[in-house]
Amino acid sequence: MYRTNTCGELRISNVGTSVTLAGWVQRVRKMGGMTFIDLRDRYGITQIVFNNEVDAALCDMANSLGREFVITVTGEVAERSNKNKNIPTGDIEIIATALSVLNKSDIPPFTIEDNTDGGDELRMQYRYLDLRRATVRKNLELRHKIGFELRRFLNENNFLEIETPILIKSTPEGARDFVVPSRMNPGEFYALPQSPQLFKQLLMVSGFDRYFQIAKCFRDEDLRADRQPEFTQIDCEMSFVEQEDILQLFEAMMKHIFKYVKNIDFTEQFPRMTWADAMKFYGSDKPDIRFDMKFVEIKDLTAGKNFSVFDDADYVGAICAKGCANYTRKQIDVLTEFVKRPQVGAKGLVWLKIEDDGAIKSSVGKFFSEDELKVWADRCNAVAGDLILILAGETMKTRKALCELRLEMGERLGFRNPSVYAPLWVIDFPLFEWDDETQRFYAMHHPFTSPNPDDIKYLETDPGRVRATAYDMVVNGVELGGGSIRIHNSELQDLMFKLLGFTKEKAQEQFGFLMNAFKYGAPPHGGLAFGFDRVVSILAELDSIRDVIAFPKNNSGRDVMNEAPAPIDDSQLEELCLKVELPLSK
Amino acid sequence: MYRTNTCGELRISNVGTSVTLAGWVQRVRKMGGMTFIDLRDRYGITQIVFNNEVDAALCDMANSLGREFVITVTGEVAERSNKNKNIPTGDIEIIATALSVLNKSDIPPFTIEDNTDGGDELRMQYRYLDLRRATVRKNLELRHKIGFELRRFLNENNFLEIETPILIKSTPEGARDFVVPSRMNPGEFYALPQSPQLFKQLLMVSGFDRYFQIAKCFRDEDLRADRQPEFTQIDCEMSFVEQEDILQLFEAMMKHIFKYVKNIDFTEQFPRMTWADAMKFYGSDKPDIRFDMKFVEIKDLTAGKNFSVFDDADYVGAICAKGCANYTRKQIDVLTEFVKRPQVGAKGLVWLKIEDDGAIKSSVGKFFSEDELKVWADRCNAVAGDLILILAGETMKTRKALCELRLEMGERLGFRNPSVYAPLWVIDFPLFEWDDETQRFYAMHHPFTSPNPDDIKYLETDPGRVRATAYDMVVNGVELGGGSIRIHNSELQDLMFKLLGFTKEKAQEQFGFLMNAFKYGAPPHGGLAFGFDRVVSILAELDSIRDVIAFPKNNSGRDVMNEAPAPIDDSQLEELCLKVELPLSK
Repeated sequence: MYRTNTCGELRISNVGTSVTLAGWVQRVRKMGGMTFIDLRDRYGITQIVFNNEVDAALCDMANSLGREFVITVTGEVAERSNKNKNIPTGDIEIIATALSVLNKSDIPPFTIEDNTDGGDELRMQYRYLDLRRATVRKNLELRHKIGFELRRFLNENNFLEIETPILIKSTPEGARDFVVPSRMNPGEFYALPQSPQLFKQLLMVSGFDRYFQIAKCFRDEDLRADRQPEFTQIDCEMSFVEQEDILQLFEAMMKHIFKYVKNIDFTEQFPRMTWADAMKFYGSDKPDIRFDMKFVEIKDLTAGKNFSVFDDADYVGAICAKGCANYTRKQIDVLTEFVKRPQVGAKGLVWLKIEDDGAIKSSVGKFFSEDELKVWADRCNAVAGDLILILAGETMKTRKALCELRLEMGERLGFRNPSVYAPLWVIDFPLFEWDDETQRFYAMHHPFTSPNPDDIKYLETDPGRVRATAYDMVVNGVELGGGSIRIHNSELQDLMFKLLGFTKEKAQEQFGFLMNAFKYGAPPHGGLAFGFDRVVSILAELDSIRDVIAFPKNNSGRDVMNEAPAPIDDSQLEELCLKVELPLSK
Repeated sequence: MYRTNTCGELRISNVGTSVTLAGWVQRVRKMGGMTFIDLRDRYGITQIVFNNEVDAALCDMANSLGREFVITVTGEVAERSNKNKNIPTGDIEIIATALSVLNKSDIPPFTIEDNTDGGDELRMQYRYLDLRRATVRKNLELRHKIGFELRRFLNENNFLEIETPILIKSTPEGARDFVVPSRMNPGEFYALPQSPQLFKQLLMVSGFDRYFQIAKCFRDEDLRADRQPEFTQIDCEMSFVEQEDILQLFEAMMKHIFKYVKNIDFTEQFPRMTWADAMKFYGSDKPDIRFDMKFVEIKDLTAGKNFSVFDDADYVGAICAKGCANYTRKQIDVLTEFVKRPQVGAKGLVWLKIEDDGAIKSSVGKFFSEDELKVWADRCNAVAGDLILILAGETMKTRKALCELRLEMGERLGFRNPSVYAPLWVIDFPLFEWDDETQRFYAMHHPFTSPNPDDIKYLETDPGRVRATAYDMVVNGVELGGGSIRIHNSELQDLMFKLLGFTKEKAQEQFGFLMNAFKYGAPPHGGLAFGFDRVVSILAELDSIRDVIAFPKNNSGRDVMNEAPAPIDDSQLEELCLKVELPLSK
């Protein structure tokens, strides 16, 4: 037996008992004739004391311990004279009577502390040491807890967790598949699933009624910031439901998670916002509603004053930054630079200040009278002390830029506190997206997404107007998940394929498999999927999903700790009937 | 809203309420002016009644429904006159007042009944319809429940579920890896994990203390019966533990599962049997101890009577089949044919009957006197009416054959009831296995398995004698899981590598990564993994794991429903810098 207790559990009530602890040496401090060791395990830190006068040999041994040595210590629990209020075990210490070294440690390449001296790359290379740090460990503890509570909620609500295959068939649609050559079927390949979509719909055809899975998914994309080639989804599907059933159930699920994981009670219904409103007021289908600062459209107020920037624009939009009229020229210059960054893409920034005395100053003061500017300010509900920021241009691009500016101002004003949560549903997404380049409509979600029943009449006459029965859950400007009601009626599905430009043959080739299954009595069904990594990172109050994954890959899809991917043996390739042909110029 | 209730929940107490149900038409029966429909969903079957006199149009509509149509029905719950005691809803029926068809169904290729008319291949091709059958559905419901209870138990015992990567580095040791070409790193490959072994040991180095994961694993093997290229493990690892800690904890886990899933209470400790005893008494490292019939060695009693079959044998072993003395010559001939099958491999079968009057008859009666045979019978504890079956030959091969014969006799005598469970631990496995061909020792488990501390002294002088700290849990002759205490001491590890014939360079090349991690304070640790599919199939009282997997693959690793694997587009291959080169003669 290596221990009687963990390093996190002893309290003042344990004083006088004899215990054995095991763990890692966090710190050794020598003070006069005493040596103090902070002994660490997953559960906490406990102070161990060695007295040179009582047992010099034991104390010498303690002094010889290095950082991260693994030891086991026996001794008596005693009350500390100077208590440490920062840790739960801070009232006690162990007066050591025996010590043995279970394993030595080389000096770690960085300190195992919350504020480590190790850089990103070094910590990723030694991820197994990085994971020892309490801040990192806590993220994975949180991930476990969220996973457990998700399963508890879904189990109580009659969902069955059903594993779907990882080795599936490659489908040409969508993002790029990872493929897996089959040795037993030479020249043929499996694909890794981008999502269990096909299988969960089949499970509805099978009558499983309520399915979920916390499932690994794979996407061979050029990795943008904060994407991983493998990621985890909370994948759910239900039969005999309408959109309202799904929204209610998964809102309850998120409330359960907030309650049992973060001790936050959402008693009100989550707000619901149409996609059109989200775009109009926030310039984004995932608005951060922790703060207001809604877009105000003022194009109608700006015409005819020979200010060509506004006159030539489809759209002129403003946001009102409360109390920012005191922004200096330099501060406004920084904001102007911000909106002109290629990622934001605005051509310039127009501003308007309402000074304390009510006077209005503006970068476009020579084009517009103070009275005219006053009307703008009124529409923005701006009062003395407020700053109005205005962008103009093509509607969607300008909204997107204004969204970035709004988020930047929210950040500056401290409105984006990660421990404040503002969830909402975005609903009524458009069914189709028009692509200028190919001059045709594409499915915004996927071709099985059901149109809003009220809009079916516009399908053939005005497809751009048709709303989908699709929904996203958004928290703090991050899309946590989304889904849709699926089409279960084959005539409607045929029409959809036609509108999306599929010939009968092509539709059969790509989706025939699911269509055939649907011939045998498909129930009405719908579902959604949450990004598990994203849910955990939001609840961990982190920006990046990388921090909530035990062994993440870098932006080139590499595991730098484990050196994967790597070349494989020629014999392996031969067995798979494969030959690598690298481009000549590499 | 498609339904107010499921098809499994209405009872006599609901009589008089108006309800709406949705589901699949299991059966339509017309009896006089009445039409009865069995409406099915995941939760059960409810009888719906249509009365031609009350509403002829509705009744006509009901009569037109085909099998597996998806409908929704509204009506009033009424007490049935002739109750059906076989189903929980059998006391009531729904007097229909409205009916609508949500979806039609083609005639399914086989009947959706427990005893279907569909063959194996057809059912696999239409797996989504096969999954509608209650027998199949119940297996997946059981799987969900076992998974949930496993997580509940492990969570309560402070285990953290931590996801380890699916895209990892290929390691040449062990079974064949599936590989995944990396587009972003041309010419390089990921591998799919055969188990999370490396990562779980790293997590122990990281201090996670108690880890588990219900994890997908992959093995590109030529599929033997009942193997799947992807399978699921309950993978566990603990720090600061000895073998006893692990056996106790995971025995408690299995007891939890038996209790909450099967309502079976194991109050006693599971038996523990050394590997040596398992081989000696059962000829197998996974003995089926639902019945006794232990091997009895009688070589010493058989010598010097000129019966060369026994004289030339290293080993003569007997089993006693209680009450089988009445076996006919024909029955014994069948057993002789059984043991001579190549899969069993015995040369012949010797038998001995103790007749009701105590007289002994035997196939070797001309070599041995009745008194001599009486001594054999006594050693076997055989009494009047018993049949003794004897095999002879090379020790291990004969034990294996006798094991098969014992299982066959157990089957014939009804001792192998799948709803009776006899779990045990097999412990003290040998650390090494000698390979005659290559004339060297191999690790029986893996090279990180710790030797039994008492046997370390024999490591260099008599390696074959060294027991491992390794253990298997066996239930009803099936290995459910196994594991070991790992070596955490680097000197001992170096010695192991030496004994296994690794040069320092080769050990570094193959295992250097884990060895490097171990330099930074590896705690003592150990763990085990259970085959989740196997655990479920045993609790489902099934022989095959295929029946507890939603979408299994066949013996060629193919998903016949989904047609995977399949050729991929040339453009996909090109992006991966790969070329398929099939052998010319195919």
